[in-house]
Amino acid sequence: MSDDLMQAALAYHAEPTPGKISVELTKPAETQLDLSLAYSPGVAEPCRAIAADKANAYRYTGKGNLVAVISNGTAVLGLGNLGSLASKPVMEGKALLFKRFAGINSIDIEVNTEDADEFVETVSRIADTFGGINLEDIKAPECFEVEAALIEQCDIPIFHDDQHGTAIVTAAGLVSALDVQGKRLEDAVITCLGAGAAAIACMRLLVSLGARRENIYMLDRRGVIYSGREGVNAYKQEFANHTDKRSLSDAIAGADVFIGLSGANLLSAEMLKSMAVKPVVFACSNPDPEIKPELALATRDDLIIATGRSDYPNQVNNVLGFPFIFRGALDVRASCINEEMKVAAVRALCELAREPVPQEVLKACELDALSYGSQYIIPKPVDSRLLSRLAPAVAKAAVDSGVASLPLPDDYAPTL
Amino acid sequence: MSDDLMQAALAYHAEPTPGKISVELTKPAETQLDLSLAYSPGVAEPCRAIAADKANAYRYTGKGNLVAVISNGTAVLGLGNLGSLASKPVMEGKALLFKRFAGINSIDIEVNTEDADEFVETVSRIADTFGGINLEDIKAPECFEVEAALIEQCDIPIFHDDQHGTAIVTAAGLVSALDVQGKRLEDAVITCLGAGAAAIACMRLLVSLGARRENIYMLDRRGVIYSGREGVNAYKQEFANHTDKRSLSDAIAGADVFIGLSGANLLSAEMLKSMAVKPVVFACSNPDPEIKPELALATRDDLIIATGRSDYPNQVNNVLGFPFIFRGALDVRASCINEEMKVAAVRALCELAREPVPQEVLKACELDALSYGSQYIIPKPVDSRLLSRLAPAVAKAAVDSGVASLPLPDDYAPTL
Repeated sequence: MSDDLMQAALAYHAEPTPGKISVELTKPAETQLDLSLAYSPGVAEPCRAIAADKANAYRYTGKGNLVAVISNGTAVLGLGNLGSLASKPVMEGKALLFKRFAGINSIDIEVNTEDADEFVETVSRIADTFGGINLEDIKAPECFEVEAALIEQCDIPIFHDDQHGTAIVTAAGLVSALDVQGKRLEDAVITCLGAGAAAIACMRLLVSLGARRENIYMLDRRGVIYSGREGVNAYKQEFANHTDKRSLSDAIAGADVFIGLSGANLLSAEMLKSMAVKPVVFACSNPDPEIKPELALATRDDLIIATGRSDYPNQVNNVLGFPFIFRGALDVRASCINEEMKVAAVRALCELAREPVPQEVLKACELDALSYGSQYIIPKPVDSRLLSRLAPAVAKAAVDSGVASLPLPDDYAPTL
Repeated sequence: MSDDLMQAALAYHAEPTPGKISVELTKPAETQLDLSLAYSPGVAEPCRAIAADKANAYRYTGKGNLVAVISNGTAVLGLGNLGSLASKPVMEGKALLFKRFAGINSIDIEVNTEDADEFVETVSRIADTFGGINLEDIKAPECFEVEAALIEQCDIPIFHDDQHGTAIVTAAGLVSALDVQGKRLEDAVITCLGAGAAAIACMRLLVSLGARRENIYMLDRRGVIYSGREGVNAYKQEFANHTDKRSLSDAIAGADVFIGLSGANLLSAEMLKSMAVKPVVFACSNPDPEIKPELALATRDDLIIATGRSDYPNQVNNVLGFPFIFRGALDVRASCINEEMKVAAVRALCELAREPVPQEVLKACELDALSYGSQYIIPKPVDSRLLSRLAPAVAKAAVDSGVASLPLPDDYAPTL
């Protein structure tokens, strides 16, 4: 990050008021009558209604359109364990994105504990406050048990975006990229560099979408995760492969796909050369991708590359997922965000990428033209169609899979 | 409450969108640059700054102007233990009042436990998120231990409004009423009907202000709390009186002051007649005061009466206190809300009541005239001077008593 950007980011957060979100009134509160409705004595009436039937909380309070962004700060961006308070700018940022992209009211909660059980206990006790919970920046492997326990204990959607948001957007980009390259996910040999929360969720979703587990090679800091390797946690174990491959060089030779979720610049030009024809490279580490797009494209001209950065084509950006996934889940009051809903989001992203790009998107991106292909495998964050396409796809999947409390609204196509 | 008001309250809460508060953006989030400052990669910079120095959370996040309204729903208004979720309309209402009257961003958190230790544990773990915490509608005696434990564990102001907010506003009204009656708090004989959180906090604050403990008779459901009575909890014990008085009739005979915080209509005309000359009656139970003002005034013409209702003069309303107390505390970053700050709020309310009432207040109250006296012992909630007077008084008391991290701003007189 440049010094200029660093300074601008500090100024953005500090001026004219600290932070970037506020709480505002949605109802009048000027006259004595207003106040007697908003508070005592009138407020007793919705309280009684909710005490009689909990579902009335969705009718008389903001619960149904309120998502908490919750972290303990143990894995803040690529910065590591900064503690819960220091994660607050990220969590407020995520709350801002929920509102900006999907009209969802969102607040951040920082939980000051590194203990998974204490975290679960705390979040489950306050969960009634919200219509959904977005978990964020919790380190692996605790994040897996934390999410599983909260899904078990809560009746609202619990979604660890670092896992599933990343997985959904990555999978959508990958499915499209393979399509552009004329390949099928079912046949693709995939090398996944990284074995943290995002990597594991991503590989799980690719398997849901048709990838074959035996074609996946996952690597952690110690190399390929192979059957029989010692000291491999249960989550990584799921992707232990019966193979003689041990190093990244071994694993990437002949691979169709490289997915980097490692946080390190580790993919060399030599390795890239050893991949199969028409390879797909997702170098998602931020700010430094596993290989620079310039180097990758100079090394091979038959490849498609995606990164996490906005200054290159094909940005894999979680904001393409979580706002719309929650919008759809909230609007049919889904009790969870299940595999069907995640797959629906992937499919909707892929479909949208194939459609002509509206002028307003081109203008916002300062581009003359953009069409489905090696430079455009995934929609742009500024594309307002994301909301009206993804949310209904996710909502329909929730209804069809039996986890929604409400039917799909007629002609449901939310806009801001 | 009339059926019309009940229906209007439900409609107010349901239409056009459920609830009464929203989260909004305070910073631009349109361009790619905006998003790179608000979120990745720019957001890393304020995170690093906070990790290096926790105080930077006040500079780069909304923490310093964010108050959580937290309840477990065990004592919702006069409705009792409705559970945490059913308390949400009240908590959202309080959040609305914080914003409306003092410009403080406020969100509600409902904690789903009746266990005091679990409640404390939960709130203390999420406390870093906020600049202050307003506890609400937690039943006695647990509320006392909950508040004490949170004050001990947190470095931000923790304030149980049902105790201290009520105490501050009641005490201010009482000091003024005694002044109007030509009496002194130091000499006043006080009968307090009710021995819950509000009653105990109120009597404690009156003692801080000069009332003599031996002049106070506190009654619970079983009558006067006297020295040696069995089964009296430690909090009530503080006001056990060496006396032969046992009933309300005993205690009120000759009293200068009646304070009703009992939740019941229990003060008879006979009892009122037995009070000293020029008595003061605070019949604060809502919606049914301990005695109807019409009956009280028909019984004695030398009395001053206050209630919790907006349709009579002299409304004792917590909104006269908590928004401004928190405003002052936040603006000098006080670590707590101590006795000095509470007393300063009382004094500021008393001073303001003595001043001429501005036209805008008369207009909002649909009154031709209003001046300090038996019909006006306490400011009106619509009086915009409350913010510019109380907040500085509280902030100054925080600075003077050594609990503020920031100096009093020059010419500090906040407005909306």
